[in-house]
Amino acid sequence: MMVLKMDDLSKLCVHTMTTKPWGIEDCVKNFSDAGIYAITIWRNVLANKNLKDVKILLDDHEMNVVSLCRGGFFPSVDAGKRESAIEDNLMAIEQAAGVGAPLIVLVGGAERGQSPEKSREQITEGIQRILPAARNAGIKLAIEPLHPMYAADRSAINTLKQANDIAEMINSEWVGVAVDVYHCWWDETLRQEIRRCAALNKLFAFHICDWNIPTTDLLNDRGLMGDGCINIQEIRGWVEDCGFKGFNEVEIFSDKYWANDQKAYLEKIKQAYLTKT
Amino acid sequence: MMVLKMDDLSKLCVHTMTTKPWGIEDCVKNFSDAGIYAITIWRNVLANKNLKDVKILLDDHEMNVVSLCRGGFFPSVDAGKRESAIEDNLMAIEQAAGVGAPLIVLVGGAERGQSPEKSREQITEGIQRILPAARNAGIKLAIEPLHPMYAADRSAINTLKQANDIAEMINSEWVGVAVDVYHCWWDETLRQEIRRCAALNKLFAFHICDWNIPTTDLLNDRGLMGDGCINIQEIRGWVEDCGFKGFNEVEIFSDKYWANDQKAYLEKIKQAYLTKT
Repeated sequence: MMVLKMDDLSKLCVHTMTTKPWGIEDCVKNFSDAGIYAITIWRNVLANKNLKDVKILLDDHEMNVVSLCRGGFFPSVDAGKRESAIEDNLMAIEQAAGVGAPLIVLVGGAERGQSPEKSREQITEGIQRILPAARNAGIKLAIEPLHPMYAADRSAINTLKQANDIAEMINSEWVGVAVDVYHCWWDETLRQEIRRCAALNKLFAFHICDWNIPTTDLLNDRGLMGDGCINIQEIRGWVEDCGFKGFNEVEIFSDKYWANDQKAYLEKIKQAYLTKT
Repeated sequence: MMVLKMDDLSKLCVHTMTTKPWGIEDCVKNFSDAGIYAITIWRNVLANKNLKDVKILLDDHEMNVVSLCRGGFFPSVDAGKRESAIEDNLMAIEQAAGVGAPLIVLVGGAERGQSPEKSREQITEGIQRILPAARNAGIKLAIEPLHPMYAADRSAINTLKQANDIAEMINSEWVGVAVDVYHCWWDETLRQEIRRCAALNKLFAFHICDWNIPTTDLLNDRGLMGDGCINIQEIRGWVEDCGFKGFNEVEIFSDKYWANDQKAYLEKIKQAYLTKT
């Protein structure tokens, strides 16, 4: 039975951003050809697309849409910009509904002109504002804490504890958390906060990649599982021990891998998934 | 009296690494000419120097030596390398004694081949090993937590809480903590951990610079105070409200500023210190 397990891709999901050079058609076709039947769709690949056509493409390939990336970016010192962010998130909900994504990943956002506490307040308000539309559409929202190196410009939510705190306060079955090992691996409270998140029924998504040593770019130098130092297998164990039955979503931003042949890279992803996670 | 305060450089200390193009002689002479009488010496500027000569140079310029940077880097999976680290830290204690530095800043270190918990154990053991020599020399040791983006390769101590925990456990008046706003600004527990650190009499040093938006390099793109997003004045207030009477140490790694005229840069540092911290 070991052989079956070693070939089991049934819990593998790949983000379209992982194979950034591909548009949505290439992603769906090549993932399917590779035996990968779960996808998280980044909104950039939906630009200028007819969502019905995309939905047909996904259905034709029996592709499981895990989530839409991404909403959020709520904070601003400018009330007009905060309203624009709400509009954009409402559009994301429509897009998610259009392609059949049951979940939207939210990156909180940050604003240099105010404290992180204030930004977290505005993130919370933003989520509460879009929650009725999400609920009506049957789409869940997952707050993804980002690594503290993004605290200044991408998210004022930088630990799983902070994401759990906000999700717990909002207290809706439609609002939970996405755990990405890249953002959280260094945190000594990670295991306890994964348990807390699961106990709250708020562990909505699990993202994997690796931390390169050295890391040469703050954004686009993530590693394939096994390239770096993250204890991915251990963290996956914590998540699954808590009853998580969702997908392992491979989300890698990498100038290096994007420059490679993407079909060969997809094979590497499969091998790394089967042996290193 | 406002004018006096606005010109008060008596609590300003500059790290030799901040003006990296200068050797120790240029640092001492130019800091002194600029009215700055406190220095933290990085060990690279002591290479191949006679420490007695350096001490005379410092004394001749009435320069207050705040600390020596840096010891630490204790963890390794290799016992021989851990012993070499101890030797190197004992040498740092001799150097600190030689130049009259009352404090050594310790950067913990990290080892990709083992868990952060294991690395923190080895850091703790390393500090305990060098503690007798430090005490005999009358030199304090300050654990500096580093930003989580350095967790893989520079330090497994990434929050002030972790540094406080270790300092508290070692429980020696010779072991405390260095707080650097660059590493800790994002942490929602910072204020409470500063208070805890001060209550333990372990707040040994305070380092300042700023977080650039965007930050283009993980190591050498730190900002001058006011360039970025860190609430330096607020954090300095927290530190001083706890009774901290030490120096504000300007520690900036910046390829951009190192490429500039260093005398003009030193004037910018003074102005930023007086108006932005």
